[in-house]
Amino acid sequence: MRIELLKREMLKSNVDGYLISNINNVFYFTGFMDISDATLSLIIPLDGEPTLLVPPLSYTAAKDNALNCLVNVISTKDKIIDKIVQKIKLNNLKNIEFDTLSTSMYMGLIKKFKDVKITLNQKRIWNLRRVKDSQEISFLRKASELADIGIEAGIQAIKAGVKEYEIAAEAEYAMRLHGSEGIAFDTIIASGPRSAYPHGVCSNRVINKGEFVILDLGAVSSGYRSDITRTVVVGTPTRKQKKMLEIVSRAHKKALECIHENINAYEVDASARDVLKSEGYGKEFLHGLGHGVGLDIHEPPTLSSSSEDVLKKGNIVTVEPGMYIVGFGGVRIEDLVLVHENYGERLTQAAYYL
Amino acid sequence: MRIELLKREMLKSNVDGYLISNINNVFYFTGFMDISDATLSLIIPLDGEPTLLVPPLSYTAAKDNALNCLVNVISTKDKIIDKIVQKIKLNNLKNIEFDTLSTSMYMGLIKKFKDVKITLNQKRIWNLRRVKDSQEISFLRKASELADIGIEAGIQAIKAGVKEYEIAAEAEYAMRLHGSEGIAFDTIIASGPRSAYPHGVCSNRVINKGEFVILDLGAVSSGYRSDITRTVVVGTPTRKQKKMLEIVSRAHKKALECIHENINAYEVDASARDVLKSEGYGKEFLHGLGHGVGLDIHEPPTLSSSSEDVLKKGNIVTVEPGMYIVGFGGVRIEDLVLVHENYGERLTQAAYYL
Repeated sequence: MRIELLKREMLKSNVDGYLISNINNVFYFTGFMDISDATLSLIIPLDGEPTLLVPPLSYTAAKDNALNCLVNVISTKDKIIDKIVQKIKLNNLKNIEFDTLSTSMYMGLIKKFKDVKITLNQKRIWNLRRVKDSQEISFLRKASELADIGIEAGIQAIKAGVKEYEIAAEAEYAMRLHGSEGIAFDTIIASGPRSAYPHGVCSNRVINKGEFVILDLGAVSSGYRSDITRTVVVGTPTRKQKKMLEIVSRAHKKALECIHENINAYEVDASARDVLKSEGYGKEFLHGLGHGVGLDIHEPPTLSSSSEDVLKKGNIVTVEPGMYIVGFGGVRIEDLVLVHENYGERLTQAAYYL
Repeated sequence: MRIELLKREMLKSNVDGYLISNINNVFYFTGFMDISDATLSLIIPLDGEPTLLVPPLSYTAAKDNALNCLVNVISTKDKIIDKIVQKIKLNNLKNIEFDTLSTSMYMGLIKKFKDVKITLNQKRIWNLRRVKDSQEISFLRKASELADIGIEAGIQAIKAGVKEYEIAAEAEYAMRLHGSEGIAFDTIIASGPRSAYPHGVCSNRVINKGEFVILDLGAVSSGYRSDITRTVVVGTPTRKQKKMLEIVSRAHKKALECIHENINAYEVDASARDVLKSEGYGKEFLHGLGHGVGLDIHEPPTLSSSSEDVLKKGNIVTVEPGMYIVGFGGVRIEDLVLVHENYGERLTQAAYYL
C-alpha cells in the first residue's frame, strides 16, 4: 500500500524509479529493520516489483522479514553499485529519484549513465512518512507510554549526590524492562549549569541540592520513537527558578492549545515564543519549538519561526519551548503531540512535577 | 597535536584545506562531542587556525568544550554552505579534501567554485584514527571493562521463560550504572533460531530451555566504544551445540594467537576461517573475522579475506568468528583486541562460559 502511494506520486512527476538507501525508509516500505549502519538498497521501479539488495550478513533476516519486495543478496565479491546499475538497466529506468547516497556512490552512478536522470528527492518520501497511519499512531502511543515510564523512573531517582548518568541508567532500565527496543536518542540528563546546554546528553557530574535537572529522553516501540522532556529542581525552587518554570510551562500550554489541522507551523512556534518574548526571554529560547517524530527522532514537519510547513491530521510533533541562561541553568518542557482536526492530543502524559 | 599530524599529511599531498562534518571526527580533533545528528563543520586550513561552525543549539557547549579551534555560530538565518564558502575564500583554499558531505552540500560547493578542487578522502583521517594513542587505549580499556560487566549481567539473567529484551535491559543497566555513556550499538540478544541471524538485535521472543543465546554488546567510555560477544546454551548443550561451540572457540583462539604487528589482516581472517572450513563449516561463517573499533563501532582496519590492511601497533580490532545454521541457530565468540608488536592483547576479558 505504501509502495503504491509512492508510485502514484512518482507517476505524477514522470519518475520511473526510486532508489532507497536509508534503513528507516527500507523499514517503512518493507517492514524489514536492519542494524543502523547496514548497507541496503531498495529499488522501486514504477512498473515491476521492488528489489531489496542486502549484504550476506543481512540475507536470512531480510528473506524472513521483508515484505512487498524481492530480496537479492550481494555477495562479498560483488560491488553494490554494479548491482544497482544492473537493476537500472534491466528495468530501463530513465528518471530516478533517491533518498540518500554517499558522495562516492552518487558520483559513481552519475558516471555510469549519460541518459539517466538521477535526482535527490527526500521530500517524496517525507510527504508520506510525515502523515502517520493508524498502525504507526498505535506504535507511537506505545513508545510515548514507555517514555512516561522512563521520565517517572528518572525523576524518582533524582536526589542530591547522585550522578547524571545514574539517573539515565534508571530511566533507560525502566523503559527497557517494559519493552522499549532501546532508546530513541542519547538520553539527556543535564543538571546545574549544564542544564543551559540544550543538547546536554549526560555526564558524570554530581547533582546538587537546589539545581535544575533537565530530563529529555525517549523510547522505541516497533521502530517508532518518542520524545519527552521534564525539568525539575532538586529540593525547593528559588523564586527565579519558579519564574522560569512558570514561563516555559505557560509557553508550552499556549502552543498545545493552538494546535489543529491546517495551522501554519510558524504560528504554533510564535504562540509559545511570544510568551517568552513578552517576559523578556525571547533570546533565551534558542531553538525551534518542535519537530516531527516517527521512525526518526527528527522528521518533518518543523515547528519554527522560519518553517513553511502546515500541520496536517496525523502529524506527530514535539512541543518543546525552552529557556537557557548561560552559567545559571535552563528549563525545557516537552510533549509529543498528535495533530487532530480540531486539537492536539498529548501522547506523552507524564506529570509536569511543577 | 592531532591537527598537526593531519596538516603534515595534507602538506605531503599539496592539500591546503580539510573540511570535516562527521561528529566523531570533530570530537577526535577538538574534544567536543555533540549529539549524533548535529550539523557541524570543522574547517582546517593548512595555514591558519581551524574553525568550528556550529548551530545556535550547540554554541554554548562547543565554546566551553572545543579545543584547538575557533568556534563560530551559524545563526538560524544563515546557511551553513554560505559560511563554508566564505571560509574557503577567506583562506584562499584551492585543494580541499573532506570526510563526508551530503549529496546536496557537495553539489552546492562544487557549483560555487570553478577553481577549487574538492575531493572526498576519508582515508586521510582514518589513517590517523586507526592507530590509537595511549589516552585512547585507556578509554577503550575502560569501555571493555564495562562491556565485560554487561556480558556478565546479561548471562546471569538468562533462564527459560525470560524475553530477549529483558536480558538486554539487565546488561545495559549494569553498564550504565558503572559509568557507560550509553550503548556502543544496538544490543544483540538473539535466541533459538534467531541466533542464526548475525545481526539479530533483540526481540520480545521468550527464551526456551536448550536454546543458544548470543549476547553481542558494547559500552561507551569518553566517547570510545567496545564490542564483545558470548554464546551460551540455556541448560545443558546437546552434542551438536557443544561441537559448534568448540569449533568456533578454536577458530577464535587461533586468530587471537596469530595477531601481532605487521601481519596481513587477511591472514588473521584465514587462521580462523581455516578451522571452520576444515570442519566443513566454511559457508556457515558468513562474515569477516573482525573490524577496527574506536569512536565508531566499525572502523578500519578490516579483518576479512579480501582485506588489504596490515595490522599496526595500536590498532584495536574485534576477533569474532561465527557459525550460523539457518533454522537451527548460531554461535559467535568475540573479543576486542589491542595489537602489540609481538602479540594481541584481549581488552574484553569476560569468561567464555563454555
